[in-house]
Amino acid sequence: MTSLPVIAFVGTGVMGRSMAAHLLKAGYPLRVYNRTRAKAEELLAAGATWQPSAGDAAAGADIIITMLGFPTDVETSYLGAGGIIARAKSGALLLDMTTSSPALARRIAAAASAGGQHALDAPVSGGDIGAKEARLVIMAGGEPAAFAQARPVFDLMGKNIALLGPAGAGQHCKMANQIGVAVGMVAWCEALAYAKRAGLDPAAVHASISGGAAGGWAMTNLAPRALAGNFAPGFYVKHILKDMRIALESAAELGLDLPGLKVAKKLYDDVAARGWEDRGTQALYQLYTSL
Amino acid sequence: MTSLPVIAFVGTGVMGRSMAAHLLKAGYPLRVYNRTRAKAEELLAAGATWQPSAGDAAAGADIIITMLGFPTDVETSYLGAGGIIARAKSGALLLDMTTSSPALARRIAAAASAGGQHALDAPVSGGDIGAKEARLVIMAGGEPAAFAQARPVFDLMGKNIALLGPAGAGQHCKMANQIGVAVGMVAWCEALAYAKRAGLDPAAVHASISGGAAGGWAMTNLAPRALAGNFAPGFYVKHILKDMRIALESAAELGLDLPGLKVAKKLYDDVAARGWEDRGTQALYQLYTSL
Repeated sequence: MTSLPVIAFVGTGVMGRSMAAHLLKAGYPLRVYNRTRAKAEELLAAGATWQPSAGDAAAGADIIITMLGFPTDVETSYLGAGGIIARAKSGALLLDMTTSSPALARRIAAAASAGGQHALDAPVSGGDIGAKEARLVIMAGGEPAAFAQARPVFDLMGKNIALLGPAGAGQHCKMANQIGVAVGMVAWCEALAYAKRAGLDPAAVHASISGGAAGGWAMTNLAPRALAGNFAPGFYVKHILKDMRIALESAAELGLDLPGLKVAKKLYDDVAARGWEDRGTQALYQLYTSL
Repeated sequence: MTSLPVIAFVGTGVMGRSMAAHLLKAGYPLRVYNRTRAKAEELLAAGATWQPSAGDAAAGADIIITMLGFPTDVETSYLGAGGIIARAKSGALLLDMTTSSPALARRIAAAASAGGQHALDAPVSGGDIGAKEARLVIMAGGEPAAFAQARPVFDLMGKNIALLGPAGAGQHCKMANQIGVAVGMVAWCEALAYAKRAGLDPAAVHASISGGAAGGWAMTNLAPRALAGNFAPGFYVKHILKDMRIALESAAELGLDLPGLKVAKKLYDDVAARGWEDRGTQALYQLYTSL
């Protein structure tokens, strides 16, 4: 019996800790690091070993998985002095599952390749519930051989798993998703804010229209929360803003104008300006109905 | 046994003829008028009686149903000299199922009321298939007593049937739907156009994202047509443009800014400017990918 590869998991926030727990449960030796150690305690209690930094976690691992917050965190963790690429061994497999920039993913892949390592960008969708239930969508970019090597690990965390193209393609796919999500929020918010302004009961209108051509995941799942005055975060305003910034930068590099996304970004800037950064994305409905 | 009320059906296009056929099948005596007589032939062969004008059709009917193209058609048919309101008897029930303007619906309701008639605006969604299968969503505005009287007739044509409020409320609800539809088209078109521009296979990206938070009816049903190069109309560009014009006018009257809808309107103006008015709304994807 061959022993399972050692995995380093860096970033054990809400998403990361659920994902890492699946790997631990499957028997992988797990080295963990997180900026706030408290968020790793559950995993440590379950058998993971604490590491003092991302680089230290990477040093002894065959596979390094990162699930971080912002592209700057990804850049520092991978490319910083004493970071993952500096410390990981040759042949190591680096999987960044953070939603981050396609351009940064390409830089990391190139740096990894120079060090004899193999990197994939592999952002996910499906949120905390998808992470908990191992039903994430995983969108990967990189070399097919690295993807094949990562596949058993991905299979423990997700269901709809695809290699979309070379380095950066996973992030591009995730950006496509976030563009659809962000502009889709504008769609149902404008629909229901219009109904409310016209004096209709938005819940009754929702019952008439959510099963039809205007319907979708967000109208089904987020609009009822907004109509009930529940603005608790499923997905944070500050995070959709981060993603829109990346997508707009990336679209600009590609020479593609996305007027719908620009409007969504401007509206969410207004949401954030009201101090609602830590609310759920459905807070956009609050903006429309308070205008 | 009491005999069923006589129904006049004005406007026997793709939607109207399917709707009218259900009434005929249920045994209602049916008087029909359509600008182009050929489009009424099926109904005439099935037992409907031809009438030379909307007013003539209305004259002998207990219930008058209109399913027309543009608000100007609705205005002429109802309020024009020798039109429906001039010719229908006192106590008649007038049901405009055209997607039209809320303000016009209120004017018609007021004029009907002055003539002792009862009007409902009752636009639908669900398209030609919904009409054929009697599964339309019917969104009504008007008096509850008139709605109760119309209900048996609505039940023959639709499934999700609601009275949303006073005259105009049905049109407002339909406008909310169309706002969601139009901005929702921008959402998936920008998502997949970005993916394509980034060098990804849009169909693979669709497979990754259409089941998640960016997913919805349009991404499921229209995006695959666009990706396959099929721009045949389910719903015409010229019709979504009509609806957006009405919605923007109505929003302006309500003092509500809809920046997402404005972008959608501008984009579809560009689609129309390319001569694609008679294509399906998924032609918006063509615009993005030809920029």
